[in-house]
Amino acid sequence: MGEDGLLERLAPWLGGEDLVVGPGDDGAVWQPPLGSAVVTTTDSLVEGVHFTTPLDGNAAIDLGWRLLAVSLSDLAAMGAEAGPAFISLALPEAWPVAWVESLYQGLAECAAQFGAPVAGGNVSASATAVLSSTCLGVVAPGRAMVRPGAREGWQLGITGAVGAAAAVLTAGRAGGEVRTEWLRSSRPIPRLEAGLALARAGVGVAIDISDGVFRDAARLLAVASCSGLVIDGGVLPVADGVRERWPREWADVAAGGEDYELLFAAPTGVMTGALAALRATGLEPALIGVFDRGPGLRLIADGGEAPPPVSGHEHFRG
Amino acid sequence: MGEDGLLERLAPWLGGEDLVVGPGDDGAVWQPPLGSAVVTTTDSLVEGVHFTTPLDGNAAIDLGWRLLAVSLSDLAAMGAEAGPAFISLALPEAWPVAWVESLYQGLAECAAQFGAPVAGGNVSASATAVLSSTCLGVVAPGRAMVRPGAREGWQLGITGAVGAAAAVLTAGRAGGEVRTEWLRSSRPIPRLEAGLALARAGVGVAIDISDGVFRDAARLLAVASCSGLVIDGGVLPVADGVRERWPREWADVAAGGEDYELLFAAPTGVMTGALAALRATGLEPALIGVFDRGPGLRLIADGGEAPPPVSGHEHFRG
Repeated sequence: MGEDGLLERLAPWLGGEDLVVGPGDDGAVWQPPLGSAVVTTTDSLVEGVHFTTPLDGNAAIDLGWRLLAVSLSDLAAMGAEAGPAFISLALPEAWPVAWVESLYQGLAECAAQFGAPVAGGNVSASATAVLSSTCLGVVAPGRAMVRPGAREGWQLGITGAVGAAAAVLTAGRAGGEVRTEWLRSSRPIPRLEAGLALARAGVGVAIDISDGVFRDAARLLAVASCSGLVIDGGVLPVADGVRERWPREWADVAAGGEDYELLFAAPTGVMTGALAALRATGLEPALIGVFDRGPGLRLIADGGEAPPPVSGHEHFRG
Repeated sequence: MGEDGLLERLAPWLGGEDLVVGPGDDGAVWQPPLGSAVVTTTDSLVEGVHFTTPLDGNAAIDLGWRLLAVSLSDLAAMGAEAGPAFISLALPEAWPVAWVESLYQGLAECAAQFGAPVAGGNVSASATAVLSSTCLGVVAPGRAMVRPGAREGWQLGITGAVGAAAAVLTAGRAGGEVRTEWLRSSRPIPRLEAGLALARAGVGVAIDISDGVFRDAARLLAVASCSGLVIDGGVLPVADGVRERWPREWADVAAGGEDYELLFAAPTGVMTGALAALRATGLEPALIGVFDRGPGLRLIADGGEAPPPVSGHEHFRG
């Protein structure tokens, strides 16, 4: 049907009423609110790495949702409000058009829920399917949350429970029962409202948990102004049933990644207001750790203190 | 070395002095000039489609240049000034790190020349290498050039000669001599200065020539308010030596694509000033056609008028 033809078929799923120039031109033109700073995030999902070639449309819809949600989760970690999103598809020539339409249905559903219209993108041929999303957002000048800057005595908070996505995988590999509530992880919820609430409450340090709670906590520690961070495994919120099912390995499951909750750090005074603001949005946040003199990142669990498992996802490890 | 390790190795090639939050966080934060509109463009280069797996660093440097230049060319077509750029890499795990560093050297050289700092991005594992660039830029509100809107009687202009990239390929396939001046096409020059000059001169309709002059002219015609466009093959600027080498097939070579000149349309009065503004930037623009009642797109060549060849690049043609 040709590249132009494919883009035409996808047009109904594209947004852009708020854009000065919408999809279908050399670029999109967007007018951010006067004086705001622009936040840009980008993420990719790759065939054979993040998804297997799926045969059914439902899987493609969920994948479309996820493709946008993972970039929006990065916006949330910056405390940004969502703006337009751009989707870049590299697809084998014989890839079913119906699958791409399902993907765009999922993108559009996520876009509608979080106010991030898909405003354009690009389609290329490729031997391997690679799906990329780039999201723009806005923050008030000086209000973006960043990774660096946590100090000794600051507390570490989390917006919700981790481990649901990893529990699905772990149970699946063992041939065990998969609990229904874990499955919501196939449509991860970017914590945009929470990110905004945190930034407004004066929180300045945050990261989203894509690669595992301990791995991403270590990233905050690596650019903190102190050398230690201790996480209390007893209060870390873990998906329902995970501690019971895996009494020894629960921390490995919790470290599995793809949670898309936010980790955030602030001094005690700021933290009290931040937690209240999060509860007002319906979340159940928790304080799970304290920055200290170290050494390094430790997990308190089973009556002892030790480096946590970092089984979360990382590419190019070899 | 790990994903974080790879990103660390690439850090010297990243820009971002002008950014509020630069590379290495969940997103980048950029403060556009007060009141300006934000333009976003995105493009991809795919292993096996746009490039073959290269063995030497020079090819990777040129590829990096090209990866950024193709997105900047889209910005140029909108009449935008360049802002930060974001690079998304999907690469096989065993891909040589030195190659990626060369790619980033080329990106950085192009970024420095055109004021588009590489401000971040993403790295994923993939069986096929897919390189994507997303560029942000700014236009004054209401000043963006777009594809739709050409009217009967408007003239079609071009910023320079086409066919150099296709001549290299065509000569290569035939085992013939490749002229040195054609080779500059391995480092395409995005016409950002020209785009700005056109927008300031009041030109409202433009497109960049990535897929071939006739194919991209047809795209302007498809969204024009009239039904015809006639291009004079006698005045179309074609790369030096192409007409002589291929006296019969020169139009096929000219249609080959990857020229990255701009096509633009305007009424006669606006066009005079626009051409003068382009000449002031050192270019040799030409008026090559007129929008009319049609039917369709025609090329005047060899004393006749006929639909032009559209051999330019398109994916998903099957």
